[in-house]
Amino acid sequence: MKVAATDSAVNISPVPDTWQRRHLLGLEALSKEDILTLLHTAVELKAATGGCKDKLSILSGKTVANMFFENSTRTRNSFSLAARRLGADTVEFSASSSSLSKGETLIDTAKTIEAMNVDAMVVRHSTPGSPHLLSQNVGCSILNAGDGPHEHPTQGMLDIMTIYEQRGSLEGLTVAMVGDITYSRTARSNIWGLKKLGAHVIVCGPSTLVSKAWEEFGVEVSHSLDDIIPRCDVLNLLRIQFERQYTRPFPSVREYAFLYGMNKRRMEQAKDDILIMAPGPINRGVEITPDVADGPHSVILHQVTNGIAVRMAALYLTTTANQREG
Amino acid sequence: MKVAATDSAVNISPVPDTWQRRHLLGLEALSKEDILTLLHTAVELKAATGGCKDKLSILSGKTVANMFFENSTRTRNSFSLAARRLGADTVEFSASSSSLSKGETLIDTAKTIEAMNVDAMVVRHSTPGSPHLLSQNVGCSILNAGDGPHEHPTQGMLDIMTIYEQRGSLEGLTVAMVGDITYSRTARSNIWGLKKLGAHVIVCGPSTLVSKAWEEFGVEVSHSLDDIIPRCDVLNLLRIQFERQYTRPFPSVREYAFLYGMNKRRMEQAKDDILIMAPGPINRGVEITPDVADGPHSVILHQVTNGIAVRMAALYLTTTANQREG
Amino acid sequence: MKVAATDSAVNISPVPDTWQRRHLLGLEALSKEDILTLLHTAVELKAATGGCKDKLSILSGKTVANMFFENSTRTRNSFSLAARRLGADTVEFSASSSSLSKGETLIDTAKTIEAMNVDAMVVRHSTPGSPHLLSQNVGCSILNAGDGPHEHPTQGMLDIMTIYEQRGSLEGLTVAMVGDITYSRTARSNIWGLKKLGAHVIVCGPSTLVSKAWEEFGVEVSHSLDDIIPRCDVLNLLRIQFERQYTRPFPSVREYAFLYGMNKRRMEQAKDDILIMAPGPINRGVEITPDVADGPHSVILHQVTNGIAVRMAALYLTTTANQREG
Repeated sequence: MKVAATDSAVNISPVPDTWQRRHLLGLEALSKEDILTLLHTAVELKAATGGCKDKLSILSGKTVANMFFENSTRTRNSFSLAARRLGADTVEFSASSSSLSKGETLIDTAKTIEAMNVDAMVVRHSTPGSPHLLSQNVGCSILNAGDGPHEHPTQGMLDIMTIYEQRGSLEGLTVAMVGDITYSRTARSNIWGLKKLGAHVIVCGPSTLVSKAWEEFGVEVSHSLDDIIPRCDVLNLLRIQFERQYTRPFPSVREYAFLYGMNKRRMEQAKDDILIMAPGPINRGVEITPDVADGPHSVILHQVTNGIAVRMAALYLTTTANQREG
Repeated sequence: MKVAATDSAVNISPVPDTWQRRHLLGLEALSKEDILTLLHTAVELKAATGGCKDKLSILSGKTVANMFFENSTRTRNSFSLAARRLGADTVEFSASSSSLSKGETLIDTAKTIEAMNVDAMVVRHSTPGSPHLLSQNVGCSILNAGDGPHEHPTQGMLDIMTIYEQRGSLEGLTVAMVGDITYSRTARSNIWGLKKLGAHVIVCGPSTLVSKAWEEFGVEVSHSLDDIIPRCDVLNLLRIQFERQYTRPFPSVREYAFLYGMNKRRMEQAKDDILIMAPGPINRGVEITPDVADGPHSVILHQVTNGIAVRMAALYLTTTANQREG
Repeated sequence: MKVAATDSAVNISPVPDTWQRRHLLGLEALSKEDILTLLHTAVELKAATGGCKDKLSILSGKTVANMFFENSTRTRNSFSLAARRLGADTVEFSASSSSLSKGETLIDTAKTIEAMNVDAMVVRHSTPGSPHLLSQNVGCSILNAGDGPHEHPTQGMLDIMTIYEQRGSLEGLTVAMVGDITYSRTARSNIWGLKKLGAHVIVCGPSTLVSKAWEEFGVEVSHSLDDIIPRCDVLNLLRIQFERQYTRPFPSVREYAFLYGMNKRRMEQAKDDILIMAPGPINRGVEITPDVADGPHSVILHQVTNGIAVRMAALYLTTTANQREG
């Protein structure tokens, strides 16, 4: 059987002593060393699974609960596949049919699931800090899959891994995040991670979505994509999250596309080896034109594959650290 | 591999000849001997799986269908984990997306699923007797996961198992079920099971939720929690099921909490070794205060773990009996 | 373990060189030889799995994504069980919670899922041609699980397989499809497949649901069930799809049942060995009476079991052909 064969042929490095984290709540709290451990483990697991494809059994006997209190298919399935490709079982919880609608507290919901002997919970919730709250109240590992506009650490890591794969290092690169920064957990997690690995980060967008206050995060703030393009090694084009906006941050989608959309004309101003990234789902014709999304500089689909690598690494590291302490 | 290692090291007792049941429809119909078989098998399977955690393969090659026509995550996932920890495959059906909405009868839905070679169906339905109807029309095993206000046998058994683990026997214990008895399938299943094992059962709550007619079930009826507390070995605090009530059974939630909520003051009147149980999800501050729910007498989370044990036992016993007869 | 035992005992025929199809989009495009390959592979896999019950590992290490953008439990679970009985992993996507609701294109959704290293996508979509569009844009195998009123090839194949099991050949048989032909992808797939295997096909129903234009498909058109019954070897009673009809195609359900429902009286006019089929879910008392649905001529539940056989065959053939070319 392929499963067994793959497995016995593979030696995954043990979790280093420096990794002490039982949870992955955000990249803000991680040291540079922790981030590198996550990164190198993801790279190793991607290779060991033939590109996130084959199965290992290093999490065999473990159970991972997907607890998504906001809609998701992409991240949910990415975590689910990551867990199963390491041999873990998965259980799925959703907001609509859960006991929360019967008045149960979030902590009680989590404790109940923990009592079913779950080893890790993957949590997405609209309230910032929800995964942190749970991590203080349960014994299993908590992985933040997005807490409101706060953090989305595996998305940050998969973006970083994709740049690392292409360039070998983040040190000294200029990475611009373009678009809806205010509401973006992806932007926050990227900023924390990129800066710790030595990249220069620019956040760019209309002043209604990118305030000057972002300079306090140690990043450069720009309101003109055309101004910054020639300096960028990486452009990460965030989706306009129409579903998160309560007032209109710009006159029209057309104007946004005109001012901040990446297109053929702007590609001509860019470095020859610029990387085009987007966390997806993408709005074609808004933040990115089809020729750029599907062009040779786009690594958008690499990001998707690396999402599984990063999530395998996060599940492996946190549950192993958890077992060590317990 | 852990899975194989666990498996070969474990010897599960064969199903006793006295167990002839291909279905688990309710505790009313079970003999004392049947209930003890379920109980002892659950205890054995819990131990054999390291506390409902490791995997066995005694149901390998079998498929269990979860058919929940009412919302559920807790019971659904508990059954699903129970099935998979015994090595079975699971398939999920739900009311909203099922063919029932296209005019198919419940029996035809079940026969169709059976034709996909399912070995057991776990059925939750708002209509009392639905699992019984199906058991007369399909060849596979039917497990009742709650039929309206009628029975919820695995919930009754997990409550009983939790008491048994703490006390070694149910004989002579006084167990009070407090709250919304009228609409409670949990209360009904508990009453049948507890009485067969020799416990004295009290049902307690406002007269709008606990009528004198319950005396016909051979239980004591009380309308005052304060009166009965000193005599109780176990208090099972049922959730007020706001979603099942069509008229208001009490003036206000606050008054209910004042009269029937378990709190610190009432704990002082209780026996030193009282067990506090709740089927969950709990409404903190209504039927139970946080200090009691999280206190040393609470076995609420043990109930959750034992839910998996009891469901493993039920799946093992019914499908094995089914095979023996077929 | 049963899984391993079954597996090593079984030799599945290699995919013949004549089968070059990486996708299963419809029966219209298949040659007679292709259809026979699908049919014989389904028969072989059914036998090798003890009647679509045991597990093989011929798709071990592969992942199948279920992408149902229309509600389904029957077909979705049938594909899911087929995939898992061949040893594949499955992931589930649904319309409501998917990124499509965030403005993503269908192609981008599919490419994203493909980047998670999926080997086959099972697609149901209300727009005819959606699976064809995807097959031109992704590298993995696409299996059409119903595209609007266009085709539903595995349904066509399972109907054909059920007749083949009973009669040994389709050559020269007269098969009538009765009912809602206009909106029926099942009818279209059946017609293509049946005619290629040499059957004579009649479509029968009220003129509002069965127009004379169907004669262009090379089938006989009838508006009277009573007229054609004596000549039929097989009756396939399509469900009236109330959810797909925008204007009323007949005066009343009662009148439809009177004119086109199969019942005891009409069975007396039929051949002694007539086969009664229905793709389900059935509306008892409309297109079929209970005594006929549950009677000795009914092979409705065989159709369900054969659905798994046909889907195992389709997954095996397409993904193997895909690997061969890649």
